[in-house]
Amino acid sequence: MTLEAIRYRAGALQILNQLLLPHQTVYDEIRSVQDAYEAIKSMKVRGAPAIAIVGCLSLAVELRAGAGGDDPVTFIRESLCHLTSARPTAVNMGRAARELMEFAENESMEKNSEQLRESVIAWIEDMLERDVNDNRKIGNYGAQHILSGVPRDSVTILTHCNTGSLATAGYGTALGVVRSLHALSRLKRVYCTETRPYNQGSRLTAYEAVAEGIPATLITDSMAALTMREMDITAVVVGADRVVANGDTANKVGTYQLAIAAKHHGIPFYVAAPSTSCDLSLESGRDIIIEVRPPEELTSINGVPIAAPGIEVWNPAFDVTPHQLITGGIITELGVFLPSELQAALTGRLTAL
Amino acid sequence: MTLEAIRYRAGALQILNQLLLPHQTVYDEIRSVQDAYEAIKSMKVRGAPAIAIVGCLSLAVELRAGAGGDDPVTFIRESLCHLTSARPTAVNMGRAARELMEFAENESMEKNSEQLRESVIAWIEDMLERDVNDNRKIGNYGAQHILSGVPRDSVTILTHCNTGSLATAGYGTALGVVRSLHALSRLKRVYCTETRPYNQGSRLTAYEAVAEGIPATLITDSMAALTMREMDITAVVVGADRVVANGDTANKVGTYQLAIAAKHHGIPFYVAAPSTSCDLSLESGRDIIIEVRPPEELTSINGVPIAAPGIEVWNPAFDVTPHQLITGGIITELGVFLPSELQAALTGRLTAL
Repeated sequence: MTLEAIRYRAGALQILNQLLLPHQTVYDEIRSVQDAYEAIKSMKVRGAPAIAIVGCLSLAVELRAGAGGDDPVTFIRESLCHLTSARPTAVNMGRAARELMEFAENESMEKNSEQLRESVIAWIEDMLERDVNDNRKIGNYGAQHILSGVPRDSVTILTHCNTGSLATAGYGTALGVVRSLHALSRLKRVYCTETRPYNQGSRLTAYEAVAEGIPATLITDSMAALTMREMDITAVVVGADRVVANGDTANKVGTYQLAIAAKHHGIPFYVAAPSTSCDLSLESGRDIIIEVRPPEELTSINGVPIAAPGIEVWNPAFDVTPHQLITGGIITELGVFLPSELQAALTGRLTAL
Repeated sequence: MTLEAIRYRAGALQILNQLLLPHQTVYDEIRSVQDAYEAIKSMKVRGAPAIAIVGCLSLAVELRAGAGGDDPVTFIRESLCHLTSARPTAVNMGRAARELMEFAENESMEKNSEQLRESVIAWIEDMLERDVNDNRKIGNYGAQHILSGVPRDSVTILTHCNTGSLATAGYGTALGVVRSLHALSRLKRVYCTETRPYNQGSRLTAYEAVAEGIPATLITDSMAALTMREMDITAVVVGADRVVANGDTANKVGTYQLAIAAKHHGIPFYVAAPSTSCDLSLESGRDIIIEVRPPEELTSINGVPIAAPGIEVWNPAFDVTPHQLITGGIITELGVFLPSELQAALTGRLTAL
């Protein structure tokens, strides 16, 4: 059974409150756009794809209850603006808002208020289904690709950060590949890094693994190279914040270091990402600006100081892995591609695996 | 001014209580061998060289007060046994105990109790002075070697774990090199890794840097490769738990990964260690057994759980860096040597730098 972080049944939405994880499993009811805004802002829900889907679903919940009255387009526009402002850097919410708004405006030309509400609700419910299906495809393509290169019965994977049900619409990207391998009974074990400073690995990935009985071992980020040498790692699989045209990939800080260590050990390194995370408008990773976050993320934990007072801190949130180090491939819902094939594949000039 | 973690004036010993660091700076009086035993056992003092010197100095304190009466040899033997049992894996205390016992037994053949006490006290006080002097030599040799390859005015160093005054008799090994560069006004900045899971970097190295005004920046272990790429790192310098005959080096977990990343970026990688940490009886690092420590070090911090309950953990305390990755050299009190030169240098067949 796959962990459900987002529960949606026509008109009713619940989210797993990630602020209480991993120690308490509590679902919060999301009854309105304002509820979703607050959940996103306070990080009860996190992960760019998950934020977008929860935001849009909260709109569907209100529309089902008749929100917007005779002017649903204005209500939809104001709601999407509000939702996007909760965490402006989460790109997926912005993209979904633009696409949905364009759809709603077109629909409004030929439909009455009630019909418009229904078609927007259908669009949003489709989005949820499509996102989860894309992740399942990523999981299956990735699992097949990894297994195709391996004579053994079972494989051992190393992953980073959280890329599972808790970060996406469901199932996950890199962790979706791990789920697929486990479902095929071909996963010996997954090693997950703690992922300092925000500990997504020890809090969230470990939680998902325990919840579903996936054999998993937690290590610190500093133990990854030793794990590669000692634990017969078959492949390293990570997610992506953004993949650009040449295959360079921005992802949680530490990804670059894992890719270097994988290369040193001759272990294939995979990036798992839906095509919506690929940004062909940027040519190379050099164009990506590194977000630097507050020092407190390193120097305290749950508000308790853990470092020497007065020390300076550098806290970049992610890093860019050059395409040369992505030796396994980029796993998308369209198939697995080498970085050099990505652009052609996404623009329809190359057929999937 | 160098931070004093061990304060000794003929007959009086104080140690900086490391359990209270980095938030409180408190010196505890060590009046007896039993005081030292308890301080070592409870980890008020840590780091193999520091444990040995504090243990022996506590014996000197008691001998100065006349302990052992007419049979000081028995008192010395029992004290050293007791001290060694406090943390049996800290090799330096065991080695110091053997050497001191041999010395005391030889002296006892021709000296009376009072003379014996005096010569043992002198031996111990010499040991303190010698250790600190050796570290200063390591610092100076290392600084010169790093600067010799660099056209720039100032250098930027990346280090791991704590190898400073808080881990040694004083001054430090890898952090001694950083201190020497700073004293020469040639240090632009040192980047110190957090060093999970026990956070020696954020708690102790950061504390030493703040205390002495050394320009320092804390990063997570996962940011090291990115720091190498972005921050113009001149050299990586780490300490050692043990260096074996071919130059393979056991050190705090994460060292191996740093060495791989340094190699990838073409940055020289140095190990700083006194000759007493070199063990020529082992031919290669393959013979070193990796100590695995309790899961709780990863899953909780100050007793508060931080990981998903039920997750399995692998917690190796150190790793072995193969000599091929030690591209800068091994910095000892005798000079800086390539791994291939180490054996000859330590057995007197090669002259220092």
